[in-house]
Amino acid sequence: MTAERLGVAIAGVTGYTGIELARILSRHPRVDLCFLGGRSKAGEPIEMGAPSLASIVTGTVEELDPDRIARRAQVAFLALPHGAAADVAVPLLDRGLTVIDLSADFRLDDPEVHRIWYGEHTAPQLSGKAVYAMPEINRDRIRGARFLASPGCYPTAATLSLAPLVAEGWVDAGDLIVDSKSGASGAGRSASVANLLAETGEAMHAYNVTRHRHTPEIEMALGMVCGTDVRVTFTPHLVPMSRGILSTAYARPTTRRSAAEFQALYERYYREEPFVRVLPQDRLPDTAHVRGSNFIDIAVRVDERAGGRIIAIAAIDNLVKGASGQAVQAMNIALGIPETTGIDLPPMFP
Amino acid sequence: MTAERLGVAIAGVTGYTGIELARILSRHPRVDLCFLGGRSKAGEPIEMGAPSLASIVTGTVEELDPDRIARRAQVAFLALPHGAAADVAVPLLDRGLTVIDLSADFRLDDPEVHRIWYGEHTAPQLSGKAVYAMPEINRDRIRGARFLASPGCYPTAATLSLAPLVAEGWVDAGDLIVDSKSGASGAGRSASVANLLAETGEAMHAYNVTRHRHTPEIEMALGMVCGTDVRVTFTPHLVPMSRGILSTAYARPTTRRSAAEFQALYERYYREEPFVRVLPQDRLPDTAHVRGSNFIDIAVRVDERAGGRIIAIAAIDNLVKGASGQAVQAMNIALGIPETTGIDLPPMFP
Amino acid sequence: MTAERLGVAIAGVTGYTGIELARILSRHPRVDLCFLGGRSKAGEPIEMGAPSLASIVTGTVEELDPDRIARRAQVAFLALPHGAAADVAVPLLDRGLTVIDLSADFRLDDPEVHRIWYGEHTAPQLSGKAVYAMPEINRDRIRGARFLASPGCYPTAATLSLAPLVAEGWVDAGDLIVDSKSGASGAGRSASVANLLAETGEAMHAYNVTRHRHTPEIEMALGMVCGTDVRVTFTPHLVPMSRGILSTAYARPTTRRSAAEFQALYERYYREEPFVRVLPQDRLPDTAHVRGSNFIDIAVRVDERAGGRIIAIAAIDNLVKGASGQAVQAMNIALGIPETTGIDLPPMFP
Amino acid sequence: MTAERLGVAIAGVTGYTGIELARILSRHPRVDLCFLGGRSKAGEPIEMGAPSLASIVTGTVEELDPDRIARRAQVAFLALPHGAAADVAVPLLDRGLTVIDLSADFRLDDPEVHRIWYGEHTAPQLSGKAVYAMPEINRDRIRGARFLASPGCYPTAATLSLAPLVAEGWVDAGDLIVDSKSGASGAGRSASVANLLAETGEAMHAYNVTRHRHTPEIEMALGMVCGTDVRVTFTPHLVPMSRGILSTAYARPTTRRSAAEFQALYERYYREEPFVRVLPQDRLPDTAHVRGSNFIDIAVRVDERAGGRIIAIAAIDNLVKGASGQAVQAMNIALGIPETTGIDLPPMFP
Repeated sequence: MTAERLGVAIAGVTGYTGIELARILSRHPRVDLCFLGGRSKAGEPIEMGAPSLASIVTGTVEELDPDRIARRAQVAFLALPHGAAADVAVPLLDRGLTVIDLSADFRLDDPEVHRIWYGEHTAPQLSGKAVYAMPEINRDRIRGARFLASPGCYPTAATLSLAPLVAEGWVDAGDLIVDSKSGASGAGRSASVANLLAETGEAMHAYNVTRHRHTPEIEMALGMVCGTDVRVTFTPHLVPMSRGILSTAYARPTTRRSAAEFQALYERYYREEPFVRVLPQDRLPDTAHVRGSNFIDIAVRVDERAGGRIIAIAAIDNLVKGASGQAVQAMNIALGIPETTGIDLPPMFP
Repeated sequence: MTAERLGVAIAGVTGYTGIELARILSRHPRVDLCFLGGRSKAGEPIEMGAPSLASIVTGTVEELDPDRIARRAQVAFLALPHGAAADVAVPLLDRGLTVIDLSADFRLDDPEVHRIWYGEHTAPQLSGKAVYAMPEINRDRIRGARFLASPGCYPTAATLSLAPLVAEGWVDAGDLIVDSKSGASGAGRSASVANLLAETGEAMHAYNVTRHRHTPEIEMALGMVCGTDVRVTFTPHLVPMSRGILSTAYARPTTRRSAAEFQALYERYYREEPFVRVLPQDRLPDTAHVRGSNFIDIAVRVDERAGGRIIAIAAIDNLVKGASGQAVQAMNIALGIPETTGIDLPPMFP
Repeated sequence: MTAERLGVAIAGVTGYTGIELARILSRHPRVDLCFLGGRSKAGEPIEMGAPSLASIVTGTVEELDPDRIARRAQVAFLALPHGAAADVAVPLLDRGLTVIDLSADFRLDDPEVHRIWYGEHTAPQLSGKAVYAMPEINRDRIRGARFLASPGCYPTAATLSLAPLVAEGWVDAGDLIVDSKSGASGAGRSASVANLLAETGEAMHAYNVTRHRHTPEIEMALGMVCGTDVRVTFTPHLVPMSRGILSTAYARPTTRRSAAEFQALYERYYREEPFVRVLPQDRLPDTAHVRGSNFIDIAVRVDERAGGRIIAIAAIDNLVKGASGQAVQAMNIALGIPETTGIDLPPMFP
Repeated sequence: MTAERLGVAIAGVTGYTGIELARILSRHPRVDLCFLGGRSKAGEPIEMGAPSLASIVTGTVEELDPDRIARRAQVAFLALPHGAAADVAVPLLDRGLTVIDLSADFRLDDPEVHRIWYGEHTAPQLSGKAVYAMPEINRDRIRGARFLASPGCYPTAATLSLAPLVAEGWVDAGDLIVDSKSGASGAGRSASVANLLAETGEAMHAYNVTRHRHTPEIEMALGMVCGTDVRVTFTPHLVPMSRGILSTAYARPTTRRSAAEFQALYERYYREEPFVRVLPQDRLPDTAHVRGSNFIDIAVRVDERAGGRIIAIAAIDNLVKGASGQAVQAMNIALGIPETTGIDLPPMFP
């Protein structure tokens, strides 16, 4: 079976999504984790920057040299800061690798929209060229793709919680609200005062209200589902926990339907999905029930008192289904590996 | 000045709101904390049930005997479980005390609405008879009142964040959404598995979706402001922190107005309020910035991309402005004591 | 390979250690998880009491009927409250099952010591009859054993951090101090006020000072290592986190030795151990680096200023190496399955 | 009374201890907070760097200009990073101000010991010249002093927990162990990866084992109490909470005495102290019971099984009794203001 193993590289292995990729890929039966790349930590043993990985993966963090990566790997995961991915993606694609980028650089399919929200692109020739790798809504295009843009954490939870509603046209896709709550790991592993435990350990606040960059990504992803224009008011919040996103979405029904009808819709829509757990009407999602796993738990409710307004709630682990787990899921699909391979991780509770 | 001191009793002193009342009243210059009442802890020294109060308040927790309370106190705060307040309120009112109830028993002015959401009332003759003691919207009726119902924590944050909008008719009061996030102390101090640190320390979930009992209270309070029917979709969430509520509300504008107009409205509406801090457009509320204080921090935003939808965000300490601090504020107003007396507590950060 | 699978039962599957056993055993290649037993939740679908396990393990929680268990399983893990294990252990042993008990009921080999610390034994005929299943100090006796007592969480961290020192006689085994800090899951999953997030989320305290029941277990375990009497002052503390134990031990050297000598001793002593990571002198253990894994990270330091006092620090996940993971490790050894099978879980960071 | 008010300056007002000083001094009846100084935030409104203080203190953060400070203030609190205090202390002392420094720069009375642990002093002419301002052990020298070094957080808890024992010679002062646990605010308000919520929110570790700079300060402070050489093994730990220090100390008795004798000693030793709460044998300190207050809660225990070893446990709020509250207590004493003025703050629980 070793013969069938794929050489896989991680660029940015000492960030949170990089460490999570290493946690997952180190136990993936079809993967040979052959390159651990980074910038700030290059030259250091991996356990210095990522002590949790000691004796799980070994070796030294290496500079991101495309030729060296290409000599060993057929697949490269880019877990780099936004804006930094392009420099690495271009040479690796040129050398024939399958590239799975976890940054926002290649998610938006409209270069103009990217420019508005992120500014000038660092690799305009590739802008809009990657396949948006959210399996539940885009699986067919992921198959065989060689350049994949892994979705953002907020868009994953928001899109999958609303997809059945917009797909069926049961709600007004032009009038959606997504109120999301995220743990602190979503802010990444860089020094900051705002994310110190002392500042945020007993605190909660909203941020980037009406202007968070995930807004156009949510609208694009839902647009892929329903084929019409989508408009979302998106409000992200920081929650005093390490991992997890809880997304609470509000939608206006096009016609009144019963809770049972919505429940049936969700169960039908996600029947074949290995990582979507549609909860019954007597349970609600909790980030603690998906932690460490690639699951997304979803519940739908109807507020009969308020004109039948729909409330769709989803919980994910922002570093797994919201990042590294979903990226490995995309790799499996792209390369024809059984989809759940290496990511059928049970949640860790408590 | 001792001569002017009021005898004040606390019923339920070892619960979270009771302990917080003692923290505040023990330093209130016009108050003589003369009765510490409780049920489960009756007969024990106060520091057994409330170690933080050792050497701040002294004595033994006493049974809730109306005659004994009446002999010493002119004012009684009831910090008892919902449904238990009535038994104590009736005899104390009969004995001429000013009663300030922190439970939900007497908040709703419509007995029928109370019945629908809480079931049969334990003191129907008093249902709807108390003054709803939210100073910013009901100050005139609080003055001189002898029976006060202190507002719930969620309704306080939600109502004050939306009041200027509905007062002016700038939004559709029949189409409001309140997405609230609360720390665990809001659940009270009773044994439970659901609120164990191990269950919720790294967790977030919504609960009582579409059916939380604070829904009709928010609708009533906002109705007092605008005089028309109000309809709210209310979604509470549990956040892994001890104190604090962050409330994020969404409203549909009746006509398009600029952010500057909304900012000016809020600043004008709350200009005279000592405990409302309207934040400028470059800052957002954080529960960490009001912790331990009677402040409510409020910000308003306009989502120009989404039809000018209004987002109103508020942060309070659920045990102070959301409970005990607001109750003392009401006492001050009712008895003609300068309103900020004893509650001008600076927030504790971090 | 199915033919080689063992039928395994969990008694107490909805407690924290039971859920953790299910998380681990559901992915153990040699295990067929064939019985999910419990008391309070009997008759309910497993996902009601343990939502995280939905779609990982399925079925209904069953009453603890020995005959039914014996018909399906060859191995039973008992994750029941202290004192409750005996009732189940006896009939299962009689029916020929291999029993691995995670409670304290059968850990102490001296019935008299058990009586002093725990009171009268509920199954005196079995007291002292189980094999104390800490692989690193008792592997030989675990091989082939049919009745195993899985060690406590605190004793695991304390014993393994001090074992090399007492084994070599390099410290005075009669003069040891263990200062331990544990996350809240160690208190188990039962309703309580003391362990509410609101009480303990921003709190730290010591408890059961000089009289915690794990004291004699630590002394017994270290005594198994050195063959002489051991005396420990043990102080447990509650830390505001869900998982993890950090153990800081202090010992008096019998003669002065250098840090390098102690470092070499630890590396030599644990060279063959798959789950012990001895850290170099420039790193210290952190519970975040072992979370979710069966690893124990250990560091040793010498305080040259204080007569060469030895400080031995260890970090474990109290629910894995401190409970369920170590219990599965013992099962593997007892039944001749490769020791790391099913428990080579990478830590989850952050 | 305004006539009697003191002009007080805070240097470093947007750090944690600076914000805490402002919280306390803004309500101190004898203080006119007349200068808010800082470096990084100079020129900004105070509420930008310290939003919690909005409407509590007003104005702009000013550069640390000695002349401007001297024109307005008679007292200056220095809440600056270690090493930075000297530049400000010297000119202010020259201008006749009373200076209370919260850094470590002037705590150690032996310049050589300071050099060993901190390196060359930035103001050698002042090294060892300040009065060590721990009221419970040094009150007489604080009275009338004009240059005060406020103690460190760890040394405050450790020293006061052990002072009665070493004062009476009931333990061996040359053989002490202090195992301390601190919340994250102790690390200060500077950007770092190590103190991000995501890194430490579910983590615990020891740091600077055998070489933390507070070690010589603890030895000096206890030496002031007993007049003999003191030797301490000090191990600090980081706990996932914002505020609070729990200190667990271990000492060897010089002769066996009963728990009652030690209890009586502590109660006698601290009888007159307004901020020391000696707990009875049936209670133990918890950081949650002192949060936000200037109290230190202390308990003493005897481990009869272990040769009568003494365990002394203390809890403080590291930012109040461990820093800003104690500094204000020292100011009150130095200037002849009643000692508890402005710092008789009830703890905030939960």
